[in-house]
Parts: sequence; C-alpha cells; structure tokens
Amino acid sequence: MSAERPPIRFLFDYISPYAYLAWTQVHALAARHGRDVEPVPVLFAAMLNTYGNKGPAEIPPKRIYMFKDAVRHARALGVPLVPPPTHPFNPLPALRVSSLNLDAAPKRALIGRLFHAAWGGGGGVSDPADIAAMAAEIGLDGRRLMAEADAAETKALLRRRTDEAIAEGAFGVPTIIADTELFWGIDSFPFIDAFLRGEDAVTPELLERWAHIQPSASRIK
Amino acid sequence: MSAERPPIRFLFDYISPYAYLAWTQVHALAARHGRDVEPVPVLFAAMLNTYGNKGPAEIPPKRIYMFKDAVRHARALGVPLVPPPTHPFNPLPALRVSSLNLDAAPKRALIGRLFHAAWGGGGGVSDPADIAAMAAEIGLDGRRLMAEADAAETKALLRRRTDEAIAEGAFGVPTIIADTELFWGIDSFPFIDAFLRGEDAVTPELLERWAHIQPSASRIK
Repeated sequence: MSAERPPIRFLFDYISPYAYLAWTQVHALAARHGRDVEPVPVLFAAMLNTYGNKGPAEIPPKRIYMFKDAVRHARALGVPLVPPPTHPFNPLPALRVSSLNLDAAPKRALIGRLFHAAWGGGGGVSDPADIAAMAAEIGLDGRRLMAEADAAETKALLRRRTDEAIAEGAFGVPTIIADTELFWGIDSFPFIDAFLRGEDAVTPELLERWAHIQPSASRIK
Repeated sequence: MSAERPPIRFLFDYISPYAYLAWTQVHALAARHGRDVEPVPVLFAAMLNTYGNKGPAEIPPKRIYMFKDAVRHARALGVPLVPPPTHPFNPLPALRVSSLNLDAAPKRALIGRLFHAAWGGGGGVSDPADIAAMAAEIGLDGRRLMAEADAAETKALLRRRTDEAIAEGAFGVPTIIADTELFWGIDSFPFIDAFLRGEDAVTPELLERWAHIQPSASRIK
C-alpha cells in the first residue's frame, strides 16, 4: 500500500448487509489503486433521523426485497451471507468498539470479525459480552476495549464522526469516500474503480449543469 | 416474442432517471428470454406517500448523488442522459396518456418518445401540449389522446394500477415483475436474467429463513 495517496474512507454500520458485502470488497478495490482503507463507523439511524427518511428495514416490502437483493449480491460476489439472529439490532456497542484508536491491522481484524458475526454466519453483534469474546479471539483485550467503548468520549466520537459524515454528504451506508468524491452502496464499486483510474463519467462541467435544475412540482399527494 | 410465457411487467414513472435507463434495457432483457414487455405507468409519489418515505430528490445530498449515479450508469450502458428542464416535474399528464389502451407497438413508441423527452435530451414531459405534439410525431392523434388522458376514468386507472402495484409489493420505480418475482432498479437486471434462466440465488427455503428474523431494536434516536 502506498502512504502517499490518501486512504479510501469506508463509512459503515453493522446494521447493513450491504456494508458487510462492501467490506468484503473494499480492501481489494483500494489495493488495485495503491490505497489504504480507513474504516469509519457511523450510525445509520442518525442519517435517517437527519433527513426524516426511512431505512429499508422500516418499509415492509423493501425489507424483504433488501434481504433477497443482498443474497443475490452475495452469491454474485461469492461471499457467505447468513441472516443475523435479529434485525434490526442495536449496533451501538459494535460501532463504539470499532471507533477506538487501534492500529490498522487489529482494527481491520476486529471489524472483519464483527461483520462476520453480523452477516457471515456468526452469532450477532448486539451483546457486549459477545463482542468482548470476539475481540479476545483475535488477540485483543476484549474486556478493556468494551470498557473503553462504553466511555462517554467514545460515544461522543461515534456521534461526531456520524455528524461529520452527514456534513460531507453521506446519507446511507456503506459510503465510500475516495479523495473528495462520495460513493454509496455496493453497486457503486465499478464507478469507484473508474473514478480512481481518472475515468469518472461525472465531470465538473456536467455536475454544474445538473446542479442548476430547479423543481417545477412538489410531491403529488 | 412468445405469446406463451407471461410478459415482463415494467412499472415506471417518468420522474425517475433510473426508470428511463431501465426502459432502454428492458426490451432486450425480455427478448433474451422470449418474453414481451408490458409497460405499467405508476405514480412514484403515491408509493412514497404510502410508506411515509422520501424520494431521492427530496434529500439534498441524495438528489445530487442520484444525478451523478445516473450519469455513470448511462455511460456504462452507452445511452444518452440529459437533465430535464426541471426536476422534480409533474409526471401526471405523461403517465395518464401512457395508461391509455393502445396497441403494443404505438404504446411502446409513445412511452419511448416521452422518456426521451424527459431524460434523453428532449424538452420535458410536463406540458400536455408538448405531449400531444410528441404523440402526433409518431402518428397518433395527440389531441384526442390528451383529452382521453384527462378523463376521470383514466385518472382512476392510473391510481388503481398504482394501488395494485403497491399491493404487489412495489415501493419504487422502476419495478420489474417477472412472473411473480419483483425486482427494483437498474442494478437488478443481472438478477432478473438469472431468475429468468431459473438460476435465482433466492430459494423458497432461504426466503423462509430470512422472513422470520425479528427485530431486537427499533430506530435509535
């Protein structure tokens, strides 16, 4: 990996099967372009609250469709996808422990272990004791980490990073930020590749043209 | 095209650039599997109202992202994508005229002409007089059609088809219904192909397993 080019920032919440699928792909994507990955845990629910929007799991037919679609993507990618014990679940303990200041390698291992627990056939990530055990499995001091995860400053850090992500334009997960360009979802990976090759279809001129389109109607009731 | 297999139903609203992009692909998709396409105009706003959800154009950073993403998809597909004069615009006159009972060939031509006006570099589809002129261009009696489009029974037909689509599980556009399986969005096309080849990753057994996942948390505030 090159230290010269800025890392690709990977904004995620364990709640999303697409974030899991994207996690299984993002390191190879970054490596293709000589980049590191900087994982950034964020709270998806806060994004929904900001925009008064609903998550896919909150719209009954979309919830079912999302599961099917994630299964189809998983098979296309050749990665396991197994339903978690419950969904939606509380992602906060897992997000907070993932926010701690760890070295890159153990942080990647911890996040990978937690994503596996959430969507790869593990036992879920809602229980702090389970998370501590998973951290211990990969050689970390799980009990100490969970105590740090529960500290006020860690809670504030997760919230601050979420707020910063929203300020940068993130509205969902996974969000991948390459340089200053924001991409959303597993479907965007081919476009991230093109962007990093300097071949993005979106040019500043084109963007300017689209930015000035005004509405002529509001939502029909 | 085979008359033996049921047509692929293509549920759309002109408001969506993804519906336009999908329209440029769905006939070839159907032809690969010996199917016809049955276009079904629906009102996307009614789906949003049903679920209390917001459309991508109603969330400022998602609106910008959607335009960029649509441009990237358009280039990948090799089709033109040009911003309409205004967005969101009122799609009702175009949806209603597209709901009329026309023969398949002129209906396809009319819908194609309207999609071109909305997203392919034409002048938009909000003005009934423009729509009448476009219908005339392709050999239809545009003034008569627009009078029929404005009739109470046509308005009721569009609303009824939208309600039926929602009852079938549609929550967005484009929705493609192949046999009884519902797919959403341009990204789903490879999965529709797999489904029509009898190779869908989603099996009834798998679906049963996912259907029973219960929530253990509601939205974090």
